[in-house]
Amino acid sequence: MYKMIALFKKPSDPVAFDEYYFGTHLPLTEKIPGLLEMKVTKFHGDSPYYLMCEMVYESKNAFKESSKTPEAKASGRDVMNFAGNLVTFLFGEEVHGK
Amino acid sequence: MYKMIALFKKPSDPVAFDEYYFGTHLPLTEKIPGLLEMKVTKFHGDSPYYLMCEMVYESKNAFKESSKTPEAKASGRDVMNFAGNLVTFLFGEEVHGK
Repeated sequence: MYKMIALFKKPSDPVAFDEYYFGTHLPLTEKIPGLLEMKVTKFHGDSPYYLMCEMVYESKNAFKESSKTPEAKASGRDVMNFAGNLVTFLFGEEVHGK
Repeated sequence: MYKMIALFKKPSDPVAFDEYYFGTHLPLTEKIPGLLEMKVTKFHGDSPYYLMCEMVYESKNAFKESSKTPEAKASGRDVMNFAGNLVTFLFGEEVHGK
């Protein structure tokens, strides 16, 4: 499995962030073709990150093909627009699971 | 679901890190009682992190109970010993999934 992970630092206004993230950004992201799984985790306590979104694709190639779609581009533009200063992206391969 | 996430920065010797991590540390971690799921992802390219381990528990309470076990303490001691300078822990709740 190929994974793209978005890690968000704590926003200055978490209520407004959550409203936009869950109400507008996630529905856009869920439409991305080839996206097999998506999991959002909110972190507690004194954490360096506020929220993580994991997006799972069948393979690196499936991810690359998916990235060319209008849905992926719309989601990408949207996240950079509302949280470009908060987000870090990680890309990788699942190598071990229990 | 309650999640504990370990994010590792790039080690100075990735080969030695992988050997110890997959050969010694993971087998210790897999023994932790109450650990429902464990997924390891290795990141590609110019990433701020080298590897992520996600550990999933039924609830925050299940995680707290699990943390008191000798197996959890052994895994915790081990990770601080071989990668205390590389690891960041995040704790949170899965709030949305597709």
